[in-house]
Amino acid sequence: MAKQERAIRTRHSILLAAAKIFEARGYQSATINEILAEAGVTKGALYFHFPSKEHLAQGVLSAQDQSLPVPERPAKIQQFVDTVLLHAYRLQTDPMVRAGVRLSLDQQAQGLDRSGPFLRWGEIVRELLEKAEAQGELLPHVKTGETADVTVGGFAGVQAMSQAICDYQDLLARTSALLRHLLPSVALSSVLTSVDLTPNRGRIVFDEQGGLLADQRQAVSVEG
Amino acid sequence: MAKQERAIRTRHSILLAAAKIFEARGYQSATINEILAEAGVTKGALYFHFPSKEHLAQGVLSAQDQSLPVPERPAKIQQFVDTVLLHAYRLQTDPMVRAGVRLSLDQQAQGLDRSGPFLRWGEIVRELLEKAEAQGELLPHVKTGETADVTVGGFAGVQAMSQAICDYQDLLARTSALLRHLLPSVALSSVLTSVDLTPNRGRIVFDEQGGLLADQRQAVSVEG
Repeated sequence: MAKQERAIRTRHSILLAAAKIFEARGYQSATINEILAEAGVTKGALYFHFPSKEHLAQGVLSAQDQSLPVPERPAKIQQFVDTVLLHAYRLQTDPMVRAGVRLSLDQQAQGLDRSGPFLRWGEIVRELLEKAEAQGELLPHVKTGETADVTVGGFAGVQAMSQAICDYQDLLARTSALLRHLLPSVALSSVLTSVDLTPNRGRIVFDEQGGLLADQRQAVSVEG
Repeated sequence: MAKQERAIRTRHSILLAAAKIFEARGYQSATINEILAEAGVTKGALYFHFPSKEHLAQGVLSAQDQSLPVPERPAKIQQFVDTVLLHAYRLQTDPMVRAGVRLSLDQQAQGLDRSGPFLRWGEIVRELLEKAEAQGELLPHVKTGETADVTVGGFAGVQAMSQAICDYQDLLARTSALLRHLLPSVALSSVLTSVDLTPNRGRIVFDEQGGLLADQRQAVSVEG
């Protein structure tokens, strides 16, 4: 295993441990020693990658919005829907994404800037909406930045409600309902007639994405 | 001061103290002794009203959705908008409401059932939408329960985003934007043309409500 790859794996296992401890104890109560014990790495390795608890938290916060290859779609509104529903699916299934989302809503996390994920997600969604706008898919009055913020904020609350009521069991249905309520104010109805925003869509995109990632890995190993 | 009124005041000052401590320390870390010190009441008085930390938390959680007299409106969609924007305004200005909302999003609160506010708000909003439906204000496909849940969940996230980014400074504008995005999927456009959902609406309703409450108090003191 190349040195660089080993460093990436170490970093990832530290982040996974941090995600677990932050989720169980909250940012404020969690300690670096607990994360160290969970990660099973040396103190030196941990501090090499993350010099402080805040760096660990920012690492977990960032993991939720790292860019993933949502396949390109002819209709950019479909790509927007796919991005949101894929995130909902990953939130249900990926402990790292879940820890990141929870940390961004951890109001007791003193001294931790939690605005990053909201702003980055806002940016990702706005860019998709701008592409949709350029293709003439949007209603003329739409302000892409405002619609992006409403989508990101709305999703953050829908997931929190789903978590509080039934530990995410109905998350995909609730997310689909949110999109069904928002999109008629955003996109032309002639575009919406061909958009799939059923709850199952998140898993479909995730599976597709798995295929894409496998292709990329194969390409890399053929090159290398 | 009548005995009953004194008891109500004591209960309220205990809840205010609990709200402050829960907001500063989170549910998990807060202790009854801290709340006791903040409230300045006897241990007996506190336990008489709230036998446990969970009872205190449920008291704070409930304070945010206690029914307030939003004035009746001819258009029930306006009453729905007023209810949401008034809540946003109170969240900005009332420490008790803020503590309740934060507590309902406190994911580290082990053993505390936080579903109550989501479910009660869902019920309040659904009833308003049912009245709107009965008056023919809604689009025919609307499922009032689903739309209520999307509104309540969406608002919870919009407020969390506003808090994380700018400590609630833009909350009213964000809430207004959420409603402008949702309502065209919910109500007839002929109803929406006469609905006021500008950010300032929350304060207008709050002031009106202050007048209503003063009238009620006067009526009570005249009767008594």
